[in-house]
Amino acid sequence: MTDLLAATAELVGIPSLSHGEGALADLVEERLRDHDWLEVTRLGDNVVARTSLGRPQRLVLAGHLDTVPPNHNEEPKFEGDTLWGIGAADMKGGLAVMLDLAVATPSPSVDLTWCFYACEEVGRADSGLLELWRARPDLLAGDAAILGEPTGALVEAGCQGTLKVKISLRGVRAHTARPFTGRNAIHRLGPLLDAVAAWESRTVVLDGCTYAEQLQAVAVEGGVAGNVVPDAASVSVNFRYAPDRALADAEEYLRQVLRGSFCEDEGDAWLLIDGADSAPPSLGHPLLAALVDATGAAPRAKVGWTDVASFWEHGVPAANFGPGDPLLAHHPDERVTRAQLERARTVLAALIA
Amino acid sequence: MTDLLAATAELVGIPSLSHGEGALADLVEERLRDHDWLEVTRLGDNVVARTSLGRPQRLVLAGHLDTVPPNHNEEPKFEGDTLWGIGAADMKGGLAVMLDLAVATPSPSVDLTWCFYACEEVGRADSGLLELWRARPDLLAGDAAILGEPTGALVEAGCQGTLKVKISLRGVRAHTARPFTGRNAIHRLGPLLDAVAAWESRTVVLDGCTYAEQLQAVAVEGGVAGNVVPDAASVSVNFRYAPDRALADAEEYLRQVLRGSFCEDEGDAWLLIDGADSAPPSLGHPLLAALVDATGAAPRAKVGWTDVASFWEHGVPAANFGPGDPLLAHHPDERVTRAQLERARTVLAALIA
Repeated sequence: MTDLLAATAELVGIPSLSHGEGALADLVEERLRDHDWLEVTRLGDNVVARTSLGRPQRLVLAGHLDTVPPNHNEEPKFEGDTLWGIGAADMKGGLAVMLDLAVATPSPSVDLTWCFYACEEVGRADSGLLELWRARPDLLAGDAAILGEPTGALVEAGCQGTLKVKISLRGVRAHTARPFTGRNAIHRLGPLLDAVAAWESRTVVLDGCTYAEQLQAVAVEGGVAGNVVPDAASVSVNFRYAPDRALADAEEYLRQVLRGSFCEDEGDAWLLIDGADSAPPSLGHPLLAALVDATGAAPRAKVGWTDVASFWEHGVPAANFGPGDPLLAHHPDERVTRAQLERARTVLAALIA
Repeated sequence: MTDLLAATAELVGIPSLSHGEGALADLVEERLRDHDWLEVTRLGDNVVARTSLGRPQRLVLAGHLDTVPPNHNEEPKFEGDTLWGIGAADMKGGLAVMLDLAVATPSPSVDLTWCFYACEEVGRADSGLLELWRARPDLLAGDAAILGEPTGALVEAGCQGTLKVKISLRGVRAHTARPFTGRNAIHRLGPLLDAVAAWESRTVVLDGCTYAEQLQAVAVEGGVAGNVVPDAASVSVNFRYAPDRALADAEEYLRQVLRGSFCEDEGDAWLLIDGADSAPPSLGHPLLAALVDATGAAPRAKVGWTDVASFWEHGVPAANFGPGDPLLAHHPDERVTRAQLERARTVLAALIA
């Protein structure tokens, strides 16, 4: 059996910050080629490998190649049966399992589509999966999909939506020795940040899965010069909303939450930077129900946004399932264990055998 | 008589953002050369012209060539006898008056040193006046000094000190869908900015002049990526303090004001970026008393920092006197009137005639 921890470490060791997935896509393409049951297609830094065995159903297994910026964890590090490093959990462990199964399963029970794609960790407009949906939707067709995002090798159902808004506050420039002649836009950030931090998370239960919404400031900027009262400052916030809201509703709700801290009539601006819709749990589909059965454990809600929503948007029910603790995604202590990798492989192998 | 409004407009039309004063220094040098009562020295983009007539006293008249970044006011614009534009008040009006008097006063009552220097509007370390004090202190020697900063053609005595501190707040990175595993450093800016905004100005009366202290946030930054709880954020604040505090006392006071909003034991950092000491009123000096008399009006406190402090540090009592409303310095509506320019010229001419 493949050493999945070593295989994951190899992938961690190939930097693949969003927009820089070329080297990793090369490796994936090279590994999948020359297996006669797989037809491999590359589009940009996206690689898709499909069987065409005439099975009555087709299952898509998909995972993103990119990572967020490293945080002093570029180098893969082993400690016993644990691997530390950027992307170990999100989601090079999942990629290693997918690669291993793709080349080890010449005769699956359903037709399979293995999809490795770029630019998931950045704005939706750059998504490699969107690039595939636009250029080659035929490559992504299927009856159900599994996203190999880190879920602790349990099924995480559906996904929350996400939106990013940039709120720009206006002021009036002045000399800092005489600030009363101006208006400090950075000082105005205080109450806005307080409102974001004080917002109380809402939870919703759907199909027995609990979705917890989250609101976080993710960027702040402002300032002109060391002796100038600044006339502009901005904060960008990321809102993760439950599947019972649509994107437009979620944006309007957020606007109401923060309306006391900005005023468009005074020149402040509200700009939707990025948004992606949520997806409801779809565990009624036979392939996904079988996946839950194979895990032998109750499913949970996916609180992060994943491309489960992208598949759902195209009518393909999907769920998240992969090795790695989702709590460690984007965390400096990101890591994955051999046990999780092997468990994920065993569950998926049982499903597609 | 020179058209001082047109002369100021000519100077406004020559961009001289800090570190980019070359073209303006060229013009000043060219205008001052070829007058046999002036010895002109250029050092970098600083220009000094001195008389050596053996008078018992020497008065230094100094002004900075640079401006803060423009705010859609690069182009000089006239409306009747008012000139709008970056630097019109701070302090190209003063420079125009100085240039005019320098070439029109071959036989002053006191020896004169006309000093035009670079990089006043940025960090102290870059100051052209400091460059002169280090390389050619003989050029700046004098019994008293007048800084041509905008004062509304009244004497503004002494100056407040200024310091800039950057406070960096730590957090722990996490995925924004699961922020409870991290700590949002940008959210921590809220209470810190609130403390800065809520700080109450202190006023001090010295020699009948009222100094009002000011505290302003001048820069803010933070953020990693749109889906990452940020682990770092910072704010820079500018504190303008009265002449009864020294720099070190002022920094310690500010630290006490903000101590509830940051914690060095938790990895937060306090960094003094820039600081310049205050200067007390020095109106007892005969030349400065004569300046006050020539204005026929009561002196006021200078609440901004000026190089009055730099002269005071070298034992030269100094005061601020120049055309232009100090409230308009660094303001998008910066402007100067012909009446102010002519009044400033008349007062200075009476003093040095």
